[in-house]
Amino acid sequence: MAKEVITPSILPGFMELLPADQIVFNNMLDTIKKTYEKYGFIPLDTPMIEKSEVLLAKSGGETEKQVYRFNKGDNDLSLRFDLTVPLARYVSQHFGDLTFPFKRYHIGKVFRGEKPQKGRFREFYQCDIDIIGNENLSVINDAEILSVIYSTFKALGFDDFTIRINNRKVLNGFFEGLQVSDKTEVLRTIDKLEKIGNEAVLKELEAIGLSKENSQRVLDFVGTKGSCRDIIKHLREMNFQNEMFNEGIDELELVVNYIDSFKVPSANYTIDLTIARGLDYYTGTIYETVLNRYPSIGSVCSGGRYDNLAQKYTTKKLPGVGISIGLSRLFYQLREAGILGEMKRATPSEILVIPMNGTMGNALEIATKIRDEGVSAEIYFNEGKIGKKFSYADKLGIPYVIVVGEDEVKSGIFKLKDMATGEQADLSVEQIIEKLKAQDNI
Amino acid sequence: MAKEVITPSILPGFMELLPADQIVFNNMLDTIKKTYEKYGFIPLDTPMIEKSEVLLAKSGGETEKQVYRFNKGDNDLSLRFDLTVPLARYVSQHFGDLTFPFKRYHIGKVFRGEKPQKGRFREFYQCDIDIIGNENLSVINDAEILSVIYSTFKALGFDDFTIRINNRKVLNGFFEGLQVSDKTEVLRTIDKLEKIGNEAVLKELEAIGLSKENSQRVLDFVGTKGSCRDIIKHLREMNFQNEMFNEGIDELELVVNYIDSFKVPSANYTIDLTIARGLDYYTGTIYETVLNRYPSIGSVCSGGRYDNLAQKYTTKKLPGVGISIGLSRLFYQLREAGILGEMKRATPSEILVIPMNGTMGNALEIATKIRDEGVSAEIYFNEGKIGKKFSYADKLGIPYVIVVGEDEVKSGIFKLKDMATGEQADLSVEQIIEKLKAQDNI
Repeated sequence: MAKEVITPSILPGFMELLPADQIVFNNMLDTIKKTYEKYGFIPLDTPMIEKSEVLLAKSGGETEKQVYRFNKGDNDLSLRFDLTVPLARYVSQHFGDLTFPFKRYHIGKVFRGEKPQKGRFREFYQCDIDIIGNENLSVINDAEILSVIYSTFKALGFDDFTIRINNRKVLNGFFEGLQVSDKTEVLRTIDKLEKIGNEAVLKELEAIGLSKENSQRVLDFVGTKGSCRDIIKHLREMNFQNEMFNEGIDELELVVNYIDSFKVPSANYTIDLTIARGLDYYTGTIYETVLNRYPSIGSVCSGGRYDNLAQKYTTKKLPGVGISIGLSRLFYQLREAGILGEMKRATPSEILVIPMNGTMGNALEIATKIRDEGVSAEIYFNEGKIGKKFSYADKLGIPYVIVVGEDEVKSGIFKLKDMATGEQADLSVEQIIEKLKAQDNI
Repeated sequence: MAKEVITPSILPGFMELLPADQIVFNNMLDTIKKTYEKYGFIPLDTPMIEKSEVLLAKSGGETEKQVYRFNKGDNDLSLRFDLTVPLARYVSQHFGDLTFPFKRYHIGKVFRGEKPQKGRFREFYQCDIDIIGNENLSVINDAEILSVIYSTFKALGFDDFTIRINNRKVLNGFFEGLQVSDKTEVLRTIDKLEKIGNEAVLKELEAIGLSKENSQRVLDFVGTKGSCRDIIKHLREMNFQNEMFNEGIDELELVVNYIDSFKVPSANYTIDLTIARGLDYYTGTIYETVLNRYPSIGSVCSGGRYDNLAQKYTTKKLPGVGISIGLSRLFYQLREAGILGEMKRATPSEILVIPMNGTMGNALEIATKIRDEGVSAEIYFNEGKIGKKFSYADKLGIPYVIVVGEDEVKSGIFKLKDMATGEQADLSVEQIIEKLKAQDNI
């Protein structure tokens, strides 16, 4: 009689990886974490479940619809949908215990009940950094954030990427000068420039209520091209009489001037007056990052400067600047694009130790010695044919194997087999450890 | 007019740490992760939200009551309440893509809507390892798991701890021999021995239906003391005619024989016939771990061997052995007991670089150089008095500070101030990097 079993499955829109993929994913996560820490960002962890009344305070619209919200006992609970609202809550709640500027990173899962579609997940990792000031925050931080983006993608193994920056003061000041009534609508329209093209944007701008002349000026303005210094020069030469506009140019110039000192190559960043970032709360520098060979992926790292992180929770003015990498989505897209290459390693083990009849104790001692030196080692315990044991190493992508036979135990010399080349080398345990330690880790 | 703000707070029973605590917590997490990986365990990550019908299949009772379960659209969803059920689901679902024995570790949050009480959390980290066999799994794995527990707590900085092991076959065989009808009840009663004492246990055993004689035999049996080899010798000398009982002794002996080869000091493990672990699904070796100076904390790492991981999801027989560390609870208790010491570091930064008038560019270049060598460095951007800048380093516990003045830039020699001792050393940037790299990391 067959037992009744339930078919194991997960929900659509949720990511679950097999070991080889998981290891690549974790390596990316670790790389991001290490880079963030190199810049002195402090790790933070907040609950995944928060009080709905706190988490969803004054929010609404699309966000609220996507939130996983439910009751347990008398509590109205919600799963966090980003890492920014929890940061605002955290900084307000623990204000007296924090030192400002407060630089934090947060890598964790967030939850959004969106319609599942290719590359969009309902539970996904965000990797955020933010620098929060108490009352004020130097614009040099905006240059540093650009440097963090550069270092992060460089460390992830990318060379050909561009960090696009812009400044909302320049945009807003310009629109103010043109007496555009609905800046937000204009910004949203500009955001679509790359997607829908000049003509369509012109039409949309006129539909919003801009004169034909002003629509054309908007398009000319956002179309300004050249080196960062060229663009700043051009903006200055516009001699546009608007305070906010000129303040924005000053900020852009300051970021550009300092970014050289961070040794970010000029090939990796540019001023792009077309980017606006939809979100209303950005008020200064804004960032997008594109992998130049894979433009269809869109921005892989975005963010910006805001005047007030936590007005929902405190009357203190907390300006900040930050970015976010949506790692689940990025990983998925890189894998789909075939950029991650063949993933051979499905284990952290550097070596498989195979005992023979009567040498189990010796095998355990050898593996223990190797592990004590910080090298990941595994022992094959099950009995069976030697071919099956080697095949285990092969399937998991363990790079080296030694067989612990009686002769080897007596002589203290083992044949270290390189599973990729098939080559064997006669080495002592100490020499094996030395060789494994010298290898690149996965 | 005061703005209306919402008081920021989190739910009771949820853990949220300040930076200095968070850094200690993360270091513990990293230490556990590294130790697990040294043994070749493969990292796994599964969704926090699963289908209720799959996650809660055939479960019930207390567990089900504690689960965070809710609807979103047409879906009946549950937050995972442990990492074992998701493992069973994962292994069954991806069976064809995995290599057995499948060794995985999983460090992640789980959720239980328990009554909040001191040291009990509703959202907490579990750090699990399991080794899953296909049809069979050598008992040597049980010895290796003991070695993992030892290495983990050693790496966490503990010396005085004891891993208690027992074997459910010995217990079950013994009760079978005594013709005890309700083993589970007897096991539960034995589990309380340490708490309630001999007399109370005797009474409870008789209440369950054991004869006075058998109750006494149970108590004598679980009271067997001595070295592991003494206890095994005593068990053999009982000459108890029950197959399961004797199989259990064989397994205990095998574990004890091999554990020496893993170089686990005999002071750190013992056979304790009183431990039974409440859960019904353990079928062989069981583990508990106690910090000897803090017995009130209870077991800090428990687990055992089971015959069948995933009978809910597959007809395949998947025996396994595993353990779990409840890190949130452990961290909380260690902190309460004052074991973690004073936590001074509230940042990963090793050095604060303070620019003076006109040297910002130089300060950025120096920090970039230091970061490029993998050392965490921070720059103080805000303007203000020098005292405030040093106080920033002091508050965060940044160990070193350099001030980048014009003279220093000219000479290339900087005063590296040790914030703990107040000592200053004249060093070049290269020498500073060398010194920082030689420091112990946090």
